[in-house]
Amino acid sequence: MTDRQLATGLVEVFTGSGKGKTSAALGMVLRALGHGLRVHVIFFMKGNYPYGERNMLPRLQNVSFQSFGHENFVDPNNVKKEEREQASEALQAARESIASGKFDLVVLDEVNVAVAWKLINIEELLELIQEKPHNVELILTGRYADQRLIEKADLVTEMVEVKHPYKKGIKARKGIEY
Amino acid sequence: MTDRQLATGLVEVFTGSGKGKTSAALGMVLRALGHGLRVHVIFFMKGNYPYGERNMLPRLQNVSFQSFGHENFVDPNNVKKEEREQASEALQAARESIASGKFDLVVLDEVNVAVAWKLINIEELLELIQEKPHNVELILTGRYADQRLIEKADLVTEMVEVKHPYKKGIKARKGIEY
Repeated sequence: MTDRQLATGLVEVFTGSGKGKTSAALGMVLRALGHGLRVHVIFFMKGNYPYGERNMLPRLQNVSFQSFGHENFVDPNNVKKEEREQASEALQAARESIASGKFDLVVLDEVNVAVAWKLINIEELLELIQEKPHNVELILTGRYADQRLIEKADLVTEMVEVKHPYKKGIKARKGIEY
Repeated sequence: MTDRQLATGLVEVFTGSGKGKTSAALGMVLRALGHGLRVHVIFFMKGNYPYGERNMLPRLQNVSFQSFGHENFVDPNNVKKEEREQASEALQAARESIASGKFDLVVLDEVNVAVAWKLINIEELLELIQEKPHNVELILTGRYADQRLIEKADLVTEMVEVKHPYKKGIKARKGIEY
């Protein structure tokens, strides 16, 4: 173990309907990079959506990412075969990156939504966590975190929406909401 | 107004006792930078603490920061004159950066704690918000957000601690908790 590695990697979950889940994971990426940790991010949803952070990650050292899924959000009442396949690919990419020994921190962004909408099985996700090397930190984001994930996780924060400007009719702004 | 600027800047608050408030603000910094916005961050507390993100910000373009306060957290039951002075300086730096026209997004990190511990007055903070140019986005973080701030803010997320490893006896880890 080099000085840069973690002695103990935990499982952290950011869930709830409030703003800040993906942002918190990205802030932790920045913090981890600042101390020399190696990071990989897997975006489970909205693969092509023009999020500002996806312009920034390629400019940083020691961090890589993969994104899956289409620009538009999945309709949970009408999930397509192709969408399930993409989510399975994302999960496989997660397994490989976690097991690779190349990363100290792996972020599975919006994986909770993929589980809630039955794009992937919770059992597969719990198995991935079970098999995680002890020195890899995992961060899982997305609303609707499964109760079995919450039980298995070490740290869980629920982002609660106290007040949101959508309710005032303000649309998503470039650089802020995406 | 150039294409990069915001038409409308809102006031966002991340509060609550759960993990992810400063991280969410930093994730939003990354997102904003990815779309060419100009960012300034003011750390109100723990000026010298070796947070990983403070190693990273100097490596990024279009973002600057200032930090105030000492390495150790203030004792709210025994606030020193010097600590109040540092918080006042931080607030003055906030006013200047917001009014400067140089930044689209300004983060006031842990400012809520500075108010709750009476290092600065809530009235001064509300006045700063009142006088903010309409195209500057403000993010205020820290637990104990004042009710008057919550009323004035456009977006408020409460980070609720569902589960935390401190309770399992795990100490703060470099690259993750700081």
